[in-house]
Amino acid sequence: MHGQEAQNLTRKVAGVGASGYSGEELIRLLTRHPTAELVCVTSRSEAGKALAEVYPKFAATRYAGLCFSNSDPATVAESGASVAILALPHGLAHEFAAPPLEAGLRVIDLSADFRLKDEAIYEEFYGHAHPAPSLLPQSVYGMPELYRDQIRDARLVASPGCYPTSVILALSPLLKRRLLDTRSIVVSSMSGVSGAGRKADISYSFVECNETARAYGLPKHRHLSEIEQELSAAAGSTVTINFTPHLIPVNRGILTTIYASPQPGVAEGDIAAAFHEAYDNEPFIRLLGGRGYADIKNVAFTNFLDLAWRSDPRTGRVVLLSAEDNLVKGASGQAIQSLNLLCGWEETTGLKDK
Amino acid sequence: MHGQEAQNLTRKVAGVGASGYSGEELIRLLTRHPTAELVCVTSRSEAGKALAEVYPKFAATRYAGLCFSNSDPATVAESGASVAILALPHGLAHEFAAPPLEAGLRVIDLSADFRLKDEAIYEEFYGHAHPAPSLLPQSVYGMPELYRDQIRDARLVASPGCYPTSVILALSPLLKRRLLDTRSIVVSSMSGVSGAGRKADISYSFVECNETARAYGLPKHRHLSEIEQELSAAAGSTVTINFTPHLIPVNRGILTTIYASPQPGVAEGDIAAAFHEAYDNEPFIRLLGGRGYADIKNVAFTNFLDLAWRSDPRTGRVVLLSAEDNLVKGASGQAIQSLNLLCGWEETTGLKDK
Amino acid sequence: MHGQEAQNLTRKVAGVGASGYSGEELIRLLTRHPTAELVCVTSRSEAGKALAEVYPKFAATRYAGLCFSNSDPATVAESGASVAILALPHGLAHEFAAPPLEAGLRVIDLSADFRLKDEAIYEEFYGHAHPAPSLLPQSVYGMPELYRDQIRDARLVASPGCYPTSVILALSPLLKRRLLDTRSIVVSSMSGVSGAGRKADISYSFVECNETARAYGLPKHRHLSEIEQELSAAAGSTVTINFTPHLIPVNRGILTTIYASPQPGVAEGDIAAAFHEAYDNEPFIRLLGGRGYADIKNVAFTNFLDLAWRSDPRTGRVVLLSAEDNLVKGASGQAIQSLNLLCGWEETTGLKDK
Amino acid sequence: MHGQEAQNLTRKVAGVGASGYSGEELIRLLTRHPTAELVCVTSRSEAGKALAEVYPKFAATRYAGLCFSNSDPATVAESGASVAILALPHGLAHEFAAPPLEAGLRVIDLSADFRLKDEAIYEEFYGHAHPAPSLLPQSVYGMPELYRDQIRDARLVASPGCYPTSVILALSPLLKRRLLDTRSIVVSSMSGVSGAGRKADISYSFVECNETARAYGLPKHRHLSEIEQELSAAAGSTVTINFTPHLIPVNRGILTTIYASPQPGVAEGDIAAAFHEAYDNEPFIRLLGGRGYADIKNVAFTNFLDLAWRSDPRTGRVVLLSAEDNLVKGASGQAIQSLNLLCGWEETTGLKDK
Repeated sequence: MHGQEAQNLTRKVAGVGASGYSGEELIRLLTRHPTAELVCVTSRSEAGKALAEVYPKFAATRYAGLCFSNSDPATVAESGASVAILALPHGLAHEFAAPPLEAGLRVIDLSADFRLKDEAIYEEFYGHAHPAPSLLPQSVYGMPELYRDQIRDARLVASPGCYPTSVILALSPLLKRRLLDTRSIVVSSMSGVSGAGRKADISYSFVECNETARAYGLPKHRHLSEIEQELSAAAGSTVTINFTPHLIPVNRGILTTIYASPQPGVAEGDIAAAFHEAYDNEPFIRLLGGRGYADIKNVAFTNFLDLAWRSDPRTGRVVLLSAEDNLVKGASGQAIQSLNLLCGWEETTGLKDK
Repeated sequence: MHGQEAQNLTRKVAGVGASGYSGEELIRLLTRHPTAELVCVTSRSEAGKALAEVYPKFAATRYAGLCFSNSDPATVAESGASVAILALPHGLAHEFAAPPLEAGLRVIDLSADFRLKDEAIYEEFYGHAHPAPSLLPQSVYGMPELYRDQIRDARLVASPGCYPTSVILALSPLLKRRLLDTRSIVVSSMSGVSGAGRKADISYSFVECNETARAYGLPKHRHLSEIEQELSAAAGSTVTINFTPHLIPVNRGILTTIYASPQPGVAEGDIAAAFHEAYDNEPFIRLLGGRGYADIKNVAFTNFLDLAWRSDPRTGRVVLLSAEDNLVKGASGQAIQSLNLLCGWEETTGLKDK
Repeated sequence: MHGQEAQNLTRKVAGVGASGYSGEELIRLLTRHPTAELVCVTSRSEAGKALAEVYPKFAATRYAGLCFSNSDPATVAESGASVAILALPHGLAHEFAAPPLEAGLRVIDLSADFRLKDEAIYEEFYGHAHPAPSLLPQSVYGMPELYRDQIRDARLVASPGCYPTSVILALSPLLKRRLLDTRSIVVSSMSGVSGAGRKADISYSFVECNETARAYGLPKHRHLSEIEQELSAAAGSTVTINFTPHLIPVNRGILTTIYASPQPGVAEGDIAAAFHEAYDNEPFIRLLGGRGYADIKNVAFTNFLDLAWRSDPRTGRVVLLSAEDNLVKGASGQAIQSLNLLCGWEETTGLKDK
Repeated sequence: MHGQEAQNLTRKVAGVGASGYSGEELIRLLTRHPTAELVCVTSRSEAGKALAEVYPKFAATRYAGLCFSNSDPATVAESGASVAILALPHGLAHEFAAPPLEAGLRVIDLSADFRLKDEAIYEEFYGHAHPAPSLLPQSVYGMPELYRDQIRDARLVASPGCYPTSVILALSPLLKRRLLDTRSIVVSSMSGVSGAGRKADISYSFVECNETARAYGLPKHRHLSEIEQELSAAAGSTVTINFTPHLIPVNRGILTTIYASPQPGVAEGDIAAAFHEAYDNEPFIRLLGGRGYADIKNVAFTNFLDLAWRSDPRTGRVVLLSAEDNLVKGASGQAIQSLNLLCGWEETTGLKDK
C-alpha cells in the first residue's frame, strides 16, 4: 500500500466544514495537488453554493463548480472519498469524525478534539468532558517530524494547532537530548488575525485589529495543553511553561520567540548539533542558525517553518525564533503532509511551491 | 522659580533636528502646548523650508510658517530659546548639546547620548568612546515617575528610549520592593516601524514591513544598557535580562510582555500593591490590573502607558504587559513632561488630550 | 444669544447611540472641548457600563466614569442637556429625534434621516417611506461652509455624510459659479473601513479587508441622493453624477478624486479663483492648489479637508482631489462645528488640535 | 519549432536585473515552471550572493544556490540561455537588450523601453530621446490577449506595464467594436506599493504609506503613453483619456475603475457580448459581469485579471472594474505567458496555481 505502485494512485478526498480559513486554505492546496481529488466540500452556512461563488478566487480552478453540501455526516460517508479532512470548530468531533471512520474512511481532523491523549486535561482546558473519549486511543498527533511512521498507518490523525507547531518543532530536539532546564521555558508568540477564524466578531474587525497589538488568553491558553503534552513527551518528564499569544495586524503568519536555560555544561554547539541532527533531512524545516532571523514574509503561503537561534552569554539563556504560516504549516499544509503519508504519496506532494 | 507665579510664564523652545519622527511628534505636541513657544526648528536636510512645506499636516497650525534653519549650534543659542530639545540621531551629543548649555539654555536630549552614567558601558554597547563624557555627571535620566525632583532642576535631561520606558516603568516598582528574582527577567517587545526613524532604508519600506514580523538586534540590543542601568538602580544590585525587540506592521506603538519569577513568599496581592503604591497618583500611568490587556490602540497618540499583570500559578511567574506610543510616552511626550517640570509648569500641560 | 457674552457659557450635551465609531469620535472630541459638557451617553448594547470600560482609551479623561444609559428617548430629554447629538444608524430618526425636540432640546443628527429635503428621493434611495416627514422642513444641512447662518438658528441639524462632505465641498464653489458642465461629473472615492461602522460583519473583518481593495454600492449608493441634492442646489439645476465608493485598508480617511469638464471659456485661473474666494477664510479647508496632493495622513484625526486640483490640457478636464478624516470632518468633527454654531461659540472651539 | 514536439523541450532562461520586485516575482514563478530552467540571474547590487541569501524565501527551491552575477551583457549572452528576461529599471534598454539579441537570444523586456512604437511619444513622456530606436520596429507588445500570434515569433517582447494591463484589457474589446465615445474615458486606478519598485526612498517607507492614500503623477503619468497607444490601436482612432493613479497601503494589486459613455444606441447587452466574445476563451481573464466586484484579494499572487461592469442608467455611462496582481498579470506573470508562447509551450504553463 505504501510502495512505489501506490504513489500514482489518485485518491478521493472530502473537505468537511470548509468555509473557514483553514478550509479555504485546504481547498487552495488541494487545487494544486496532483493526486488528491476533492470530491466533496461541506459547510452548514454555504450549502448549495458553488465553490467559486463562495470564494471567487477559486473561479478558474478545477473545483470551481463543486457545490458545498450540508455538513451532515452521511454526505461525507457517501461521497466516495477515502479520506475526510475535517476543518470544523472545536467540539464537533463526535458528530463528524465517527461516521466516516465507521464507514471506513480515514480522517484527518484539524480541530483540537483528538490532540490530547488525556481526557482529564481536555476537560481542564476546554471546560467540558471530552465528547468522544473512545476515539482518543486510535488518534495520532499529526506532526510528521515527530510521528511520521504512526501517521502512515493512522485511521484518525489529529492535526496540530498553529501555535503548538511553532513551539513544539522549536523545542522538541533540545528536550529530547535533555539540553534544557525544563522549568525555564518561556514562550511569546504573535499571530495573524486569520488564526481567530472566519467570524463575525467585532474583536476581529479591521478597525479593531489594524494599527494595534495585544496579548490575550493569559495565563492558560487552550493550546498550552497540547504544547505541554508534546514537550513532556519529548523531555520524558512533565514540562510546564509560560505561553503568551499576541494578535498582530497581518493576515497570516506566526512568529514565536522562546527563551530557555540550557542545562549546565551544554555548549552553543550542542544546540546547533541537535537541530541539524533532527532537521537536516526534513523537507519543511529550514534552519537559519545564528545568521538570519525568522521572518513571516519568508514563510507566508508556504509549508515551511523557519528556525533560528541565539545563545546569550550574558544570561546564559538560548533564544529560539520560529516562523510559519499559521494556515499552511500551522494547519492545512501540515494536514496535507499527513494526507500524503496516509496515501503513500511522497510527503511533499503538492506542497513545495509557493 | 517653580511657584504658582511661574506657571503662567511662556517660555521659548528650540527643536533641534526636527525632521525625524520624534521631531515631528515634538512639533505636533508643541502646537497644542499653551505655554511653550516654538521659536526655532533646525534640520540639516530641510533647512530653508517652512514647517508646513515639510509637514503639510501642520499647515493650519500656529507654526506653519516657521522655517527650518540649519542645525548649527550657534543658531540655537541665538534663537532666544531658553530650552533646546534635541531630536537628533545618536552620537551627535557633543556637537549639539554643549553650545546651548554653554549659552545658558537648558537641554532635553532625545538621543541615547546622555542616558548612561558609565562611559565604559556606553563604549561596550555603542562601539566607540563617549564623545562628551564631561557632560555625563550633570545629566538626569528624564523619566519623571522615577526622577521628578532631579528633572526640575536639571540643566541636561537625557530623555529615555522607547523600549526602556515600556520596560523600566513596568519592572521598577517590583524591583524597588525586592519582589522579584532579578535573574529571572525575560522581556519580549514589539514596536511599530516609526521606532526605526525616518530613513531611506529598504528594510523599513512598506513592502518589506507590511504583512510580516521579525525579531532583530539579538542578543544585545543597545537599549539593553539603559534598561539594565535603571533596573539595577531600582533593585540595588546588578540586573541582567533577556530582551528581544520585534518589528510589527503598525506605524506607532510598543507592546511589551515581561516574564519574571517573584521571590519566595511574594503573593499576587504584593505585586498589585506595589503597582498601586507607585502609580496611583501618576498622571500618565494607567493600571489595568488583572482585568484588561494592554493594547496599543488605547494609548496611540497619547502620553499614557497602560500596565496590566497576571500571576501564573502553574509556573509561579508573573507576566507584565505594558503598552505605550513609542513617539509620545516613549519619546516626545515624555520629553514634554520634562519640559513642563523644567519650566515649573503643571507636568501634564499640553499632554492630556488625545 | 450669539453674542460675545454667550461664548463663555458652558452647555450640556447628550450623546445618543454613542457606541459606534462616530459616537466614539464624538466623545473623543468632547473630552477636549472647553465649553461643552457631556452629561449623558446612551447605547442599547453598552447600557450600564462606564465609558472607560467600553473604551479603555478614555480611561483617564474627565468622562471616564460616565455610564451609558439605555437609548430610550426619555433619558435624553431628562438628562439636563440642551443639545442632543444622535450617532445612531439610519432609520431611527422618528424614535430618537422627536422626543428631545419636543422637550426643547436642539438636535444634531449624524444619520442620513434628515438630510434629504424631498421625501420621495428618500424613499427612492432608502427603499422605504420617510419615517418622520414632518420634521424635514425644519432640518438644516449641517455643512457650515454652505449653511453657516441657518445652522446658528437651527433646532434640527442634519449633519452631512462622510462621502458627501468630500464631494460637495470640492464641487460646490465651481458649480455656484457655473464653471462646469454639470453632465460631466465623475467621482471616485476611497474610504477607510471605519466608514462601514462598528459591526460584527465578516465583510469588514480584518482578513477580508486587509491587503485588498474593492468598489461597492454601484451604481446607486445611498449617499448619491445627498450629494446630488447639494450639487443641484449649488448649480441651480439638476445635477446627476457617477459616484463609485471603494473600500481600502486604512482605519480612517476618505480620498476623493473628481473629474469634470469646465464650460467653454473657463480658464485654469477661474478654477483657482473660485476656490480661493470660497475658502480662503474657511478655518477647516486647506487649499493645496496645483502644488500638493491631498493625502489622508495629513488630515487624519483632524477636522481639515485638504483640496488640490489640476487642469489637464490634453482632455480639457479638471481633476479635483480632496482628503478628509471620515470620522472627523466627515462626521463628528463637522457635528461639533455645528454644535459650536448652535451654542454661539467660536466655530473652531475644540477642533484645532490634532 | 512551435509544434507538439517542442512542447516538452526545456529551455534555459536568464533573469537580468532580478533584485527588484518584478525580478523576485519572476524567480518565484520560474521556480514552479516545469519546462523553463533558470540558468543565470544578474544584479549589480547583489552580485556574488546566492539567491537564497538575497531572498531567504527561496531557500528550499531548486534555485537556492544560483548566484547573482554582475549585470554585464556578456554574462547573459554566455549563460547558455536562449531567452533573456530583463527586469531592469526604465532606460537601460540599449545596454542590456542589444547584446543578447545580437547573440541570438530572444528577449522579453519588463521595462517601458520598447513598448512605444513612436519614439517622439517616448521622448514626450520620458523626457529624453529613445536610447535604441533601431530596436523598436522589431518589438512586439507582450499582451497575449491582443498580440498572441506576433509574440510567438517575436525576438523582442515589450512586456506591458501594470496599470496599462488593467486598463487596456478592460477597454480594448469595447473600443474594437466601436461601442464607446472615445472622448469620454476617465480612469482611476489604485496600486499597491510594490508598484513603486524596491527602493530606498522615504516616500515608500512603511510609515509614509501605511494608514494613508494619495494620488500622484497628475496629469500625465508615463504609463498614459502606452495606454493611449493601445487604446488608439483598438479604436482605430486617437484616444486621449484621463488617468489618475493612487497609492494604497497594500503590498500588491491594482484595482482600476473606468468610466465611459457608450455610443448612442449601444445597449447593456452589447457591452456584455463584447466582453464574452473577446474573453470567454482567455485563460487568465475572468468575467464577473454585473454580479460581482473586482477585488484584489481574489487575484493576488495569481495571473488572473478579474473584470466586472455596470451600466448606470442615470448618467448613461458604463463603469468597468478590473483587478490584477501588479507583479503577476501586471508584470512577471504576463512575461511568463510570453515566454511560454515564444517557446512553443502551452500558454498557461507554470501559471495556473496560486
